[in-house]
Amino acid sequence: MIRVAVNGFGTIGRRVADAIMLQDDMYVVGIAKATPDYIARIASNKYRIFVPDQKAMREFEDKGIKVHGTVDNMVDEAEIVVDATPEGMGEKNITSYKKKRVKAVFQGGEEADVTQASFNAYSNYDSAVGKDYVRVVSCNTTGLARTISTLRDSIGVSRVYATLIRRATDQNDSKKGPINAVEPSLSFPSHHGPDLQTVIGSIPVDTVAVKVPTTLMHVHVVNVDLQKETDSSKVIDLFSKRRRIFVTSGKDGKSSTAQIMDYARELGRPRGDLFEIAVWKESINARGSRLNFVQAVHQESDVVPENVDAIRAMFELLDREDSIERTDRSLGIKGGMH
Amino acid sequence: MIRVAVNGFGTIGRRVADAIMLQDDMYVVGIAKATPDYIARIASNKYRIFVPDQKAMREFEDKGIKVHGTVDNMVDEAEIVVDATPEGMGEKNITSYKKKRVKAVFQGGEEADVTQASFNAYSNYDSAVGKDYVRVVSCNTTGLARTISTLRDSIGVSRVYATLIRRATDQNDSKKGPINAVEPSLSFPSHHGPDLQTVIGSIPVDTVAVKVPTTLMHVHVVNVDLQKETDSSKVIDLFSKRRRIFVTSGKDGKSSTAQIMDYARELGRPRGDLFEIAVWKESINARGSRLNFVQAVHQESDVVPENVDAIRAMFELLDREDSIERTDRSLGIKGGMH
Repeated sequence: MIRVAVNGFGTIGRRVADAIMLQDDMYVVGIAKATPDYIARIASNKYRIFVPDQKAMREFEDKGIKVHGTVDNMVDEAEIVVDATPEGMGEKNITSYKKKRVKAVFQGGEEADVTQASFNAYSNYDSAVGKDYVRVVSCNTTGLARTISTLRDSIGVSRVYATLIRRATDQNDSKKGPINAVEPSLSFPSHHGPDLQTVIGSIPVDTVAVKVPTTLMHVHVVNVDLQKETDSSKVIDLFSKRRRIFVTSGKDGKSSTAQIMDYARELGRPRGDLFEIAVWKESINARGSRLNFVQAVHQESDVVPENVDAIRAMFELLDREDSIERTDRSLGIKGGMH
Repeated sequence: MIRVAVNGFGTIGRRVADAIMLQDDMYVVGIAKATPDYIARIASNKYRIFVPDQKAMREFEDKGIKVHGTVDNMVDEAEIVVDATPEGMGEKNITSYKKKRVKAVFQGGEEADVTQASFNAYSNYDSAVGKDYVRVVSCNTTGLARTISTLRDSIGVSRVYATLIRRATDQNDSKKGPINAVEPSLSFPSHHGPDLQTVIGSIPVDTVAVKVPTTLMHVHVVNVDLQKETDSSKVIDLFSKRRRIFVTSGKDGKSSTAQIMDYARELGRPRGDLFEIAVWKESINARGSRLNFVQAVHQESDVVPENVDAIRAMFELLDREDSIERTDRSLGIKGGMH
């Protein structure tokens, strides 16, 4: 049983902690949180809580939330840390992990060169095998990596061009915008293109990201030049065979991200999460070697299974297919047509 | 002086009527409206109002709004009708226009085959010359036509691929959604691709449209294969030389549609309208013969100048350059860098 510490307990950290607790080859020794808010209170029923310093310890205890020690104490108990602290903090934290000779998984907010490898389970599982410091790529990059690697492995991909229509902020945030505007990335390509290349290899990728006033999901409009001609039904078949992707249809009523997320809640997953990438069947259009499709990405949860797989790869517990299969079984991920 | 009737006085109709009144070779004999709302009340200070039937006449008069007759009476006074009635009604109205031997300009909500030609001033002015029934293409198609025809005329275009991020509804509508979702078009290509081909010729065009919860503007992420290699500075130069396009920059603070529309209000145009297509300078990226750019389209007003030009073409009053120049001068359209 691998001893995992989860440093940072926001949108990603709490989901990864819960997913780890569902595995039979790893468990959570503690979670670290800086603020004694409602999330900390709920977490304290389930996890041993650690905090950055003595000041935070007093704040937590003033609110009646039991604290088991500092982040340093927590890391000392662990073989690996899942670092889900805010963007950019991982780069600072890695120094102390190295000093303590503990492995760490970072999230997509960190720069690629902070770690030894960037990771997506289907795209490049082996790149993390035996490594000490690995970065799970961001929600958007994970979404693209899942579908593009499927095409790469079966047909071959010569070029990717994608427009990423990004949610303005997460559901629990009431501070960020845009409120009533569309805000494009003003660098080309957006950082997602190069980021995708860190996990799918040297395929040329251009991306443009555009923020819109919604909180539920990202939507990607993807255009791919394939290495061979294909037809739409073959692509539908390929996508529905990869468990972390499912193919859905507007005819069934799921015509926007609002219904996709409502469907996810009906599935009964914790927090109404959707670990899979949803691809609209009607949007899958192959003409010769040119393919177009539209997919929806649940930014809060799609990277959760990859965090679990990254830990297995780093400790050489299982190979790719076995790890993915075990993670997916624990989370109820089945793929197919939904 | 061409006698113009404006049938339908919603988002487009009222703007086109006002633009026609700024010209010295045409004027508005009357406008037709079905509902005695605040828009009708304001319009009655400026225009002679006509209504569909006796019932509507009583409703208008009950509210103290003076009516000058029925739509039929109005059409009898006109040489041309600008039909800005709701989508699909133009197809019914054309029968009575033909019976009365009066010309008519329709809007982009009508099917292309209802009229003799689809129209965008820069793209295909001559196709409307001398015609009786012409359709000004929709706001989105007009936006694409302006930039793509600029590239077609100077460099040559072999293929267009665009993602259209569409506003959910207009600013004065509080009924339509999506409220908190992203809703893709589930046909490929969306109707905008074929629609653009009605004005720019046989260039292959693929479009995907995605509705988002905002009211201000549409945003287009455009990818073009050019017939020759070029560089970004040349494209910036080409776009800023076409008056109905302007090139803008996020560095100046205009990083989303919210600021672009705020800028338009500062320009002092009626209703805060923006007749031009705004292209973000930072988004213009040419690599060899492949070009990418992002543009914003004010759906309420970008087709206004085209309606004026369509009338001139149909009566053979002026040729393309002279009509565009005169329309633009009257509306304060200058192009360039903004």
